[in-house]
Amino acid sequence: MNNRLLNLKSLMLNKNIDGLLISSVPNITYLTGFSNFSKDEREAFLLIVAQPQGLTHGTPGVLGYILTDGRYSEAVKKQVKDFELIEISSKLSFGEAIKNLTQKNNIKRLGFEGHNISFLEHKRLSKYFNNIYHLSISNLRSVKTPDEISKIEKACELGDKAFEYVLKKIKEGISEKEIALEIEFFIKKQGANISFPPIVAFGKNSSVPHHQASDQRLTAKDQIVLLDFGVKLNNYCSDMTRTVFFGSANAEFKKMYQTVLEAQQKAIQQLNNLTMKQLAIKASEIDKIARDYITTKGFPTIPHSLGHGIGLEVHESPRLSPLSKDILKENMVFSIEPGIYIPGFGGVRIEDLVVLGKSGPRFLTRCSRELIEL
Amino acid sequence: MNNRLLNLKSLMLNKNIDGLLISSVPNITYLTGFSNFSKDEREAFLLIVAQPQGLTHGTPGVLGYILTDGRYSEAVKKQVKDFELIEISSKLSFGEAIKNLTQKNNIKRLGFEGHNISFLEHKRLSKYFNNIYHLSISNLRSVKTPDEISKIEKACELGDKAFEYVLKKIKEGISEKEIALEIEFFIKKQGANISFPPIVAFGKNSSVPHHQASDQRLTAKDQIVLLDFGVKLNNYCSDMTRTVFFGSANAEFKKMYQTVLEAQQKAIQQLNNLTMKQLAIKASEIDKIARDYITTKGFPTIPHSLGHGIGLEVHESPRLSPLSKDILKENMVFSIEPGIYIPGFGGVRIEDLVVLGKSGPRFLTRCSRELIEL
Repeated sequence: MNNRLLNLKSLMLNKNIDGLLISSVPNITYLTGFSNFSKDEREAFLLIVAQPQGLTHGTPGVLGYILTDGRYSEAVKKQVKDFELIEISSKLSFGEAIKNLTQKNNIKRLGFEGHNISFLEHKRLSKYFNNIYHLSISNLRSVKTPDEISKIEKACELGDKAFEYVLKKIKEGISEKEIALEIEFFIKKQGANISFPPIVAFGKNSSVPHHQASDQRLTAKDQIVLLDFGVKLNNYCSDMTRTVFFGSANAEFKKMYQTVLEAQQKAIQQLNNLTMKQLAIKASEIDKIARDYITTKGFPTIPHSLGHGIGLEVHESPRLSPLSKDILKENMVFSIEPGIYIPGFGGVRIEDLVVLGKSGPRFLTRCSRELIEL
Repeated sequence: MNNRLLNLKSLMLNKNIDGLLISSVPNITYLTGFSNFSKDEREAFLLIVAQPQGLTHGTPGVLGYILTDGRYSEAVKKQVKDFELIEISSKLSFGEAIKNLTQKNNIKRLGFEGHNISFLEHKRLSKYFNNIYHLSISNLRSVKTPDEISKIEKACELGDKAFEYVLKKIKEGISEKEIALEIEFFIKKQGANISFPPIVAFGKNSSVPHHQASDQRLTAKDQIVLLDFGVKLNNYCSDMTRTVFFGSANAEFKKMYQTVLEAQQKAIQQLNNLTMKQLAIKASEIDKIARDYITTKGFPTIPHSLGHGIGLEVHESPRLSPLSKDILKENMVFSIEPGIYIPGFGGVRIEDLVVLGKSGPRFLTRCSRELIEL
């Protein structure tokens, strides 16, 4: 029986839920390893049944069903262990299958993912079942196993290679979109995927944190080039940002760059200190250290959070932001990405992934963080 | 004032709704032309206010707000006409902004998209507003304007070119994934996007209608190669399938191919007949003609619908299926994609897009439908 199901069982019993419907694709992947379902259409559910004691003597007291249609049943039978397949068809709808299973397993309180189930889906489910309650399981994913960390690390390694590769493509005449495609094609040719559409921003565009790669071209020297991209490999994501200078950086840019880099170092330092002292590490406190460093140097505050957890999704728990209540724990993997953005001038962001180890944070992205002038 | 807002006003008043919250990204794009919002995170809402008479004398009685955050406000100001921008920030949440606007405009009954709003979002909205009702506006999009048809046609033209291009890549040793990447890269190099991950299926894999391109290679001659892919250009999608034969097709494959092709022709013929006679065209009737043709030839029934509408989304209204209640109307654009799938042997699908014109259906995809042997 897989450990994730056992952890889920504890969470469910804690919340007095004996049946749990999982619908979000990353959570289905997390529990089953199966990642082929589309996020755009409802193609599968998991139903988890948990009982305080083993279902029969000596069993772990948790079992799972996977509900999907004929398009996926062959693949699911081959790849998914620990789950019983229930095939949905024109003769058996999701609703009816769920109703049958809740009756068969004598489920009294059914949990569901309220952020993922639509209003209309909830309405249909309520017809079949009265006692249904929202339960979020996303925190289960925030502490990673060694295998997960190793997968994220491999995605980061490919990201580092993509960065080295694309540096050579930054030349007069090339457009933001063309650079973005170079990154995407490089990653895909290695058999991986992109974890999100690459952000490529030249010059003033770099002052927009989520700039979409445009047709703008590198027409002259002395411009900022901001690159923010990630790899998805074996279902796990990487994410990194580097800001390089096409030409010779002027003093103003250098000061911004240095400040961002030092803000990141301060955050890392504090993670180190608190780990050494074995103190609880508030995510908001790490955010504050980098944020305050930037403002005390006279720059505007970071207009986004300092960082985010990453794994099966590019943004997941924990969140490193001023209002975050998250505590950073051993084996969490997250980004640290301070930035300074000056409208009309440009921006600098440096983003790396770290895993919080026993003795402090360890970088998973390893490209040079020193200023690169091309 | 744009026509789409006026049509929306009629729909709203018809349903006794005087305020409507639009959250789905394709519908936001449809009404504003702005397509940069992510589907994965909630980044924007539209609020449409409709009143039976003009809001003041002589006005059209409908107005729109677009709610989004600072990341998008510059672009929205430049690109979106007819909508007032409300900027969301740490000081003004979506919920509060919606509450303010419903009060200011004296909205009594608020509509929302129940398939798109999650259970938790609905719960939060309900705190601010009691009278909220699900309203689907997706049918508004099923009849296309000449401009939309022309955009879909351009996407189809690029799809045709991609097919011609990729035919040359089908060689011994290449894998399904490599062919899929060739299609994707060709389309992206032309400045367009793919409308979904290309399906490439060799040999027996072609009997799985939604096969995911795998590492399987074309190791020998005499294999089926099924290609199903689409282009997204200027926000509009194309979709086509061709099944070619690598080697010399045997009699069994030829019979399958001919039957699928004739099933498609029967459906087209019936669309022609009914248009000539100016009769209402039931989508289910068109599905039945192709479906029955295939089964009377001794093959299994099509395990999916005969076709689907297409536009801003690759699957949208109308639906050509046995249970569909849709009536096919002038200027609807949809696929006709009969298929035969024999597990252990392989499959054939031929998919084209047509627009239903005044005098009958017209193909938007134009690649040869005759059997190609490579």
